[in-house]
Amino acid sequence: MDISTVNALTYEEFLDIFGNVVEKCPIIPAAIWSYRPFKGLTDIEAQISDFIDSLPDSGKEGILRCHPDLSLPAVSLTRDSVDEQRAAGLVRMDSGERALLLRLCARYRQRFGFPFVICARANSTESIGRALQERVSGERAQERERGIEEVKKICSLRLRQILQPSAEPGASANKL
Amino acid sequence: MDISTVNALTYEEFLDIFGNVVEKCPIIPAAIWSYRPFKGLTDIEAQISDFIDSLPDSGKEGILRCHPDLSLPAVSLTRDSVDEQRAAGLVRMDSGERALLLRLCARYRQRFGFPFVICARANSTESIGRALQERVSGERAQERERGIEEVKKICSLRLRQILQPSAEPGASANKL
Repeated sequence: MDISTVNALTYEEFLDIFGNVVEKCPIIPAAIWSYRPFKGLTDIEAQISDFIDSLPDSGKEGILRCHPDLSLPAVSLTRDSVDEQRAAGLVRMDSGERALLLRLCARYRQRFGFPFVICARANSTESIGRALQERVSGERAQERERGIEEVKKICSLRLRQILQPSAEPGASANKL
Repeated sequence: MDISTVNALTYEEFLDIFGNVVEKCPIIPAAIWSYRPFKGLTDIEAQISDFIDSLPDSGKEGILRCHPDLSLPAVSLTRDSVDEQRAAGLVRMDSGERALLLRLCARYRQRFGFPFVICARANSTESIGRALQERVSGERAQERERGIEEVKKICSLRLRQILQPSAEPGASANKL
């Protein structure tokens, strides 16, 4: 889809297509629709990033809480999340690896009050495990910011899948 | 559900129960979970109201754009909205009344770039029609604020249905 097509969408059409670029937060694309016409993909990315940055800390934590845990059963995941977790090899883990990930994710949620969020498409099972091991001992404010940075990476890849569907998701991930 | 039960919920449980108190905006209850423990219903209402007020104008318009049109087919409505529109008698309209409402809602969306939002439970089909006739000629900034005030009324009634389920929704509406 090219940017002139995007700029011609009604807000209902825009939300149908872009509603989940930030997981379960349609308010974000619904808000930045106010800033049409967009110059291009990077303009949409920048508007979303600026909107997220304008939120109070509670709002940023709210975005994180709208994300699934990496290791929850697939039934509770959006289609986008299933595809992303599959790309990272998370659906191929054996039961021992999954149990470890579950425990670390639970400890992270318990400590911070929001889930561990990472851009699965830009990582492997191994790098996700290492990041989780390290981040579970972090500080809340830092983890809030790290989580939001990951949200923005996930959003960028989802935007690319809409606006540059011919590009391989893996190839896009490598550019981050 | 009493407030001590609410305060003991994990954020996942809180979102399962309160996720749609503002239509399709789970980020809002997810954000105010940061401010637990809550003193009571009015404290939760106030936290949500303050969070909404903290948003830029685009964010307020984003909330409105996450709401359904009054007269759209029921298939696109959340369970909450179906119940609310039924309470206002909107599902009993004849085809002529429905066509008029559809035209006015379309004109409103076209003019403001967000849908006409009104607390259906606090209104009748007639008062909704009169409000729409008047508001469709309003100014964008004023309609944004009016729409947000209606969002807060809808939210208050949804909160009461969770926290005071024994009270009749109609009785609650009369208190507003």
